[in-house]
Amino acid sequence: MTINVRAYAAHSATSDLQPFRFERRAPRADDVVIEILYCGVCHSDLHNVRNDWGGASYPMVPGHEIIGRVVSVGAGVTRFAPGDEVGVGCMVDSCQHCKACEHDHEQYCEHGSTYTYNAVDRRDGQPTYGGYSEKIVVSDKFVLKIPAGLPLAGAAPLLCAGITTWSPLRHWKVGPHSKVAVIGLGGLGHMALKLAAAMGAEVTLLTRSPGKEADAKRLGAHHVVYSTDAAQMAQVAGQFDLIIDTVPYVHDLNPYMPALATDGTLVLLGFLGELAPSLNTAPLVMGRKTVAGSLIGGIAETQEMLDFCGAHGITSDIEVIQIQDINAAYERLLKSDVKYRFVIDMASLQN
Amino acid sequence: MTINVRAYAAHSATSDLQPFRFERRAPRADDVVIEILYCGVCHSDLHNVRNDWGGASYPMVPGHEIIGRVVSVGAGVTRFAPGDEVGVGCMVDSCQHCKACEHDHEQYCEHGSTYTYNAVDRRDGQPTYGGYSEKIVVSDKFVLKIPAGLPLAGAAPLLCAGITTWSPLRHWKVGPHSKVAVIGLGGLGHMALKLAAAMGAEVTLLTRSPGKEADAKRLGAHHVVYSTDAAQMAQVAGQFDLIIDTVPYVHDLNPYMPALATDGTLVLLGFLGELAPSLNTAPLVMGRKTVAGSLIGGIAETQEMLDFCGAHGITSDIEVIQIQDINAAYERLLKSDVKYRFVIDMASLQN
Repeated sequence: MTINVRAYAAHSATSDLQPFRFERRAPRADDVVIEILYCGVCHSDLHNVRNDWGGASYPMVPGHEIIGRVVSVGAGVTRFAPGDEVGVGCMVDSCQHCKACEHDHEQYCEHGSTYTYNAVDRRDGQPTYGGYSEKIVVSDKFVLKIPAGLPLAGAAPLLCAGITTWSPLRHWKVGPHSKVAVIGLGGLGHMALKLAAAMGAEVTLLTRSPGKEADAKRLGAHHVVYSTDAAQMAQVAGQFDLIIDTVPYVHDLNPYMPALATDGTLVLLGFLGELAPSLNTAPLVMGRKTVAGSLIGGIAETQEMLDFCGAHGITSDIEVIQIQDINAAYERLLKSDVKYRFVIDMASLQN
Repeated sequence: MTINVRAYAAHSATSDLQPFRFERRAPRADDVVIEILYCGVCHSDLHNVRNDWGGASYPMVPGHEIIGRVVSVGAGVTRFAPGDEVGVGCMVDSCQHCKACEHDHEQYCEHGSTYTYNAVDRRDGQPTYGGYSEKIVVSDKFVLKIPAGLPLAGAAPLLCAGITTWSPLRHWKVGPHSKVAVIGLGGLGHMALKLAAAMGAEVTLLTRSPGKEADAKRLGAHHVVYSTDAAQMAQVAGQFDLIIDTVPYVHDLNPYMPALATDGTLVLLGFLGELAPSLNTAPLVMGRKTVAGSLIGGIAETQEMLDFCGAHGITSDIEVIQIQDINAAYERLLKSDVKYRFVIDMASLQN
């Protein structure tokens, strides 16, 4: 039996989100039915709604930072039970048999992972709808356990902003002897500071905007460097094992390359497109430096990240909003006017 | 007592190399005096002589693929004795105490390694002169042992072309289960094919020029793919763990990125400068792919490479020339008219 749910949806690239009702699929044997309590607002929600990247399909119910409570489970589900506090992130399925999936890298599934919204379910061909809704029905393999005691609203952004920064920190083996820099202090950047500091790294925020020092240090940065100040950048030459670049628009990587140590990596999380100005390869060759990219993270490492956050009491800094405020929140997001993530209290859907 | 030696030198960026005499330094306690038997001709010799990269100092005696026989050793030298067959590569000194040097990465010395020619000796401030000469005087730490039985002329290019391709193959852990592609079939490319194949990898040559198939396969390639043929490139999508890019001029990396597997690396060895057209970051982010650079290799890994080549009978494919042919050889080098390295028989200096 399908499940009728309330939601907010965009009906075109130019219209506001508005109330919407639709049917969730009848739960399959491996499905978990989740009542959604909170949903984070990711910048990519806005990009998708406005079709900035193309490929938008309407009506679109955004939201992939989902926290909820299990309502019921299919006959084949053993890991979850009604009442469990759970999360759902950017993916709700993948092929499960390619090399990437076998290595728990569902985000790099060779056949394409199934995104939580604006995608098509690989089993029934129906559109996927995200977390700006009452309930969601998700295969148990893509449902995460939320550690006891973690505040639920602040945990929502861990499902995207958290894992997107955690995955490269772990992949490039950040630990107590690492020196990590983070470019940009937004949703991703503030999580990168918290996670890298909790891993024991020496953490530096690289920023173009003054006035962020107090906040950066509160979030875990040991140092703040103004990247437009050549003298300050010269002082960190050769310093960083890893630079986490969260900037979501085209920007010049060249000023950051000298700040990498030999064998250091600058990893792009936020920008998809052509680099401009052109990347100069001399620092790469002369210091075996690398420029890499990274996309969210796999399901197993998402659980690892959540458990780490549970153990260290880490959540996102958030501003809780009502679903009725979502269009105004998008406008504020465009001005980076949020510290550091909007989270929708989904109880407001009943208002 | 200084050592008067014959050599060939360039006296300006536009003049031919011609006979030249100069004094090698009086040997220090840690020095090895080497009679030079063979010297390879690297494309960078030509770049340096013609000041293509700036920083040229004349008179310049090029040559950093040096094979010779020990004539005498300083009082503190225990690893070498007169009569030993030895090699000298691109470096003759480094600071020996920075983090890079401590990790046997002298090529990334934080204070700059001392190149074999067109540099300044860090102890006496005198210019360094390279291998187009009768003898060289080098600190024992930068002298390599040539494995018994390796043909000496063919071993000369191992000191630059060999180590430059060996180092990334080892750093990125190429072995029997690796899929490696090599872009370009010149001095570096032909060594990359031989070494990667000997390491047990499945090796593909990516080339823009037809007619290289037979040679590539003789050198170790299992496959040859024409990179300008979109259909052939589509067939290798997602295949390669490592792409060794030996192209020495600006070129478009974007067509190669889809051929990398998830977590794959394209490593630039030959091109220093601004990438054009611009690198698109989408494949990096969507597949955690990386673009890296790599510079020659450290002394310990150069010895490791030579020992490997000794065990596997690997040398460079060469054309032996007389020193009097060097200017004509440079002209042929500009047309890629050599298979695959010129090596100077230094006995010809006596002609």
